[in-house]
Amino acid sequence: MSGPTSTQVLLKTRPHGIPQSEHFEIASRALPKLESNQILVKNHFLSADPAMRGWLNPTAEYSTPVEIGEVIRALATGEVIDSMNPNFAPGERVMGMFGWQTHAIVTEQAVFRRVTEKDIPFSTSLGTLGLTGLSAYFGLLDLAAPKRGETVVVSTAAGAVGSCVGQIAKIRGCRTIGITGGSQKANLCKELFGYDEVFDYKSADDLSGFLRRVAPKGIDVYFDNTAGSISDAVIPNLTSFARVVVCGTASQPTWSPWPMGPRVERHILTKRLKMQGFVIMDYQSRYEEATPILANWIRSGELKYREEILNGIEEAPDSIARLYRGENLGKLLIKII
Amino acid sequence: MSGPTSTQVLLKTRPHGIPQSEHFEIASRALPKLESNQILVKNHFLSADPAMRGWLNPTAEYSTPVEIGEVIRALATGEVIDSMNPNFAPGERVMGMFGWQTHAIVTEQAVFRRVTEKDIPFSTSLGTLGLTGLSAYFGLLDLAAPKRGETVVVSTAAGAVGSCVGQIAKIRGCRTIGITGGSQKANLCKELFGYDEVFDYKSADDLSGFLRRVAPKGIDVYFDNTAGSISDAVIPNLTSFARVVVCGTASQPTWSPWPMGPRVERHILTKRLKMQGFVIMDYQSRYEEATPILANWIRSGELKYREEILNGIEEAPDSIARLYRGENLGKLLIKII
Repeated sequence: MSGPTSTQVLLKTRPHGIPQSEHFEIASRALPKLESNQILVKNHFLSADPAMRGWLNPTAEYSTPVEIGEVIRALATGEVIDSMNPNFAPGERVMGMFGWQTHAIVTEQAVFRRVTEKDIPFSTSLGTLGLTGLSAYFGLLDLAAPKRGETVVVSTAAGAVGSCVGQIAKIRGCRTIGITGGSQKANLCKELFGYDEVFDYKSADDLSGFLRRVAPKGIDVYFDNTAGSISDAVIPNLTSFARVVVCGTASQPTWSPWPMGPRVERHILTKRLKMQGFVIMDYQSRYEEATPILANWIRSGELKYREEILNGIEEAPDSIARLYRGENLGKLLIKII
Repeated sequence: MSGPTSTQVLLKTRPHGIPQSEHFEIASRALPKLESNQILVKNHFLSADPAMRGWLNPTAEYSTPVEIGEVIRALATGEVIDSMNPNFAPGERVMGMFGWQTHAIVTEQAVFRRVTEKDIPFSTSLGTLGLTGLSAYFGLLDLAAPKRGETVVVSTAAGAVGSCVGQIAKIRGCRTIGITGGSQKANLCKELFGYDEVFDYKSADDLSGFLRRVAPKGIDVYFDNTAGSISDAVIPNLTSFARVVVCGTASQPTWSPWPMGPRVERHILTKRLKMQGFVIMDYQSRYEEATPILANWIRSGELKYREEILNGIEEAPDSIARLYRGENLGKLLIKII
């Protein structure tokens, strides 16, 4: 009897900039027999994340690039269906770096966490109860440490990470200002995510003037998912000792040639700003410190979220480009079961 | 009997950019009688510091600008010669914000510290035993927290602050790379300040290539006094989790129009850099934590320094421009007694 096959999304050609459908191809292959310590995971949901651009581009950044012909490195959530590892039993639900494929043979290192919250949708383990929520939690609370009454600005305010940041800041007693693009997202920011003030850059121009008006004493925390012209407007409006968490650079389609912008050093010096980069993978040893808290906020309704779920693995190749086009309303996932 | 007069350097016209001689004028005025809690300080040495540019320019940065006709705000060191304040007695030596003038009537708030180290030249209380050494100490150790074996890069490596930073980093077991301009300063960096590697940007072009060669594993700490093109070469050569202390922006003659440069967000994100601004005035409550340590390093010869002492208050008006021309070798002071 032959074993299961895995349908996989492979890297076909190397993208420079935002990965598009044509950089991928889909193929199936028969799975080999499990070796010692390996587990076989049947994926339920695949994740599409902005950081995948960095994993697919040629320049080694914080991870080595995926090679041509390899399965696309990606977060996924699934069920263990076979195990040669004593720590994992068939039937367990896990989230980890299982790739854009229907079945993944991995070792323990690829598993980020066991998904034990049976009362929360399984998809959410890739979103608000996964690295999305954890990014918001640790990025905001660990790096920016906002105090009650401080003003927090979030770029991509309606996005998967941004919307969590805004709500966690509110839970912690901060005043929140969301920056987003489009009236639908602006409405979500107000109605669902509870931002105190919202700026829609698709319907208004003067972000700097808006910030001076709604935050005349200055901004204490800037959670930055965009870089670029939004940051150029926010940074001069920061107050002394403000913290900038650099979590993404969504507004910059490419870093070759390297983009120019107003120098930040003088702001950093005179306002004693702290600008710090944030990558959630650095916090892996601390995930379980935050997941029970996130789960409780989800259960209590304090932490609201949206998921946009595409159906079928053939939706994966366009999904990263879709993120950068800003089309999705909520965490973008691909359901494959 | 009339009291003493004070000869004062006043702001004549507002500089935009680096203050030059013509922005100042010198005048004398009779001193009024001391009021309750005031002290009369006879200044011995006046300080010329890069930060004074910010205090004289029209834009309020971390202090309010000096007004036209006012005495130039400046650090100075002197002797209490009269006192209506029970905490200060004539004969005490003090360092503080006494201004560019021969005699200052001030309250306790202007006094930064009592200078009690009788075995160290009084002038040094404005330099290595003053805010210069304290800037190096807290900027490096508090913000960057270098570990033994790490590589520390210092811009303006032969400067008053920079040379202290390099030596304190060596004392803490780091490898030091100094960036300076001119062969005389490069020699000082090697011979006097003990840098492991020195780059003279007046005799060589490719700073980035130099850094890749001498620090192939990357730079852990960048103590930045210049901003501009030097930072543009250093930042891409930082290693993951590197710390950047922004202590000065000496390379930028003006911030109007605001200068452009390569965007730093992608480096900050992918390398999880921490860039933080440093102003020594924020550490006033902690000065006496560091001064005994600095004094002991001075006494033991571990912390070497140079002072360039101009003679007479009429040298003050050109002294800030002199700093930015990079002419001084060591902490620039004006002796007025």
